[in-house]
Amino acid sequence: MTSEPPTEHELPPQTRPAKSIVLVHTGDGKGKSTAAFGVMIRSIARGWQVAVVQFLKSGTWRVGEEEIGKRLGVDWWSIGEGFTWDSDDLTRDEAMAREAWKHARSVIEAGTHRLVVLDEITYPMNWGWIDTDEVVSTIRERPESVSIVATGRDAPAALVDVADTVTEMRKVKHAYDVGIVAKKGIDY
Amino acid sequence: MTSEPPTEHELPPQTRPAKSIVLVHTGDGKGKSTAAFGVMIRSIARGWQVAVVQFLKSGTWRVGEEEIGKRLGVDWWSIGEGFTWDSDDLTRDEAMAREAWKHARSVIEAGTHRLVVLDEITYPMNWGWIDTDEVVSTIRERPESVSIVATGRDAPAALVDVADTVTEMRKVKHAYDVGIVAKKGIDY
Repeated sequence: MTSEPPTEHELPPQTRPAKSIVLVHTGDGKGKSTAAFGVMIRSIARGWQVAVVQFLKSGTWRVGEEEIGKRLGVDWWSIGEGFTWDSDDLTRDEAMAREAWKHARSVIEAGTHRLVVLDEITYPMNWGWIDTDEVVSTIRERPESVSIVATGRDAPAALVDVADTVTEMRKVKHAYDVGIVAKKGIDY
Repeated sequence: MTSEPPTEHELPPQTRPAKSIVLVHTGDGKGKSTAAFGVMIRSIARGWQVAVVQFLKSGTWRVGEEEIGKRLGVDWWSIGEGFTWDSDDLTRDEAMAREAWKHARSVIEAGTHRLVVLDEITYPMNWGWIDTDEVVSTIRERPESVSIVATGRDAPAALVDVADTVTEMRKVKHAYDVGIVAKKGIDY
């Protein structure tokens, strides 16, 4: 059994560099946010300004990344940041997700960050908390220097369409299934 | 359409922390090495000693990671390091892969690094350049504090068996397919 080495991609005859790129990490497996985090570090290493917007409550899982990101100068927006809940019409989580999107949209449109990570944005999109068409059109009409990484399960079709590269992280097996809990230093 | 939030994993009734963990990132999509790189940064952030061993020639793609890794104190073994080719029986690439495995094995068995990344090790395993049984038994019998991340397409079944968590990164779409070349700051 042989594998192709990953350097031997077949390229179409006409190739071009992109001013920016849209990546989507979806699927039920591990590695969606971890790979976004890896891209973030690459961008920082190139001297780019980077913003991360989290669309779900983090619990303890993302504290490590947040600490590292902030230490490296990333503009990190944790869900619920500066949040005042004064609506009778929305649940608290829904209102926080909308606030996060409002912030993300302004960061994308400002064009001062060369990478904007929309971590776990697919969940509020799929739950109808934020408008998928608005997210997709904001990405499509973004300043040309702004790259985007969006993560989360069940990426909506319109988000897949607007992306250049989409990877499905599929669970083959998971330590959880045999009762092994998340490990500090590896999972967070 | 709704998605389960990723925090709501169903756990078996009996859970336990693991002393160490084995992760495999496989599949034809992007993100295998990028997610390994993300795990590496988490481990560094926890103060762990980390080693990376590359099993394929890097080209320009991994230079960014290598620079960052070394700057952060990672013991980074590039394929071909310190290499003298004095064999008539092996091709140069095969001899280099065996040398990389010899090094990786000694690092794992020494037990001084809490994370060892075996980047793209599946290729020389599948090509018969290094012995899959030996790799798997070295991983199975490793010192209990040593975690492993192994990457590459077509992970052999025995490697999947020894792993705690296996993710298949599946290509849904790729910028390459429409002629967009790899982007600095994102892909490397």
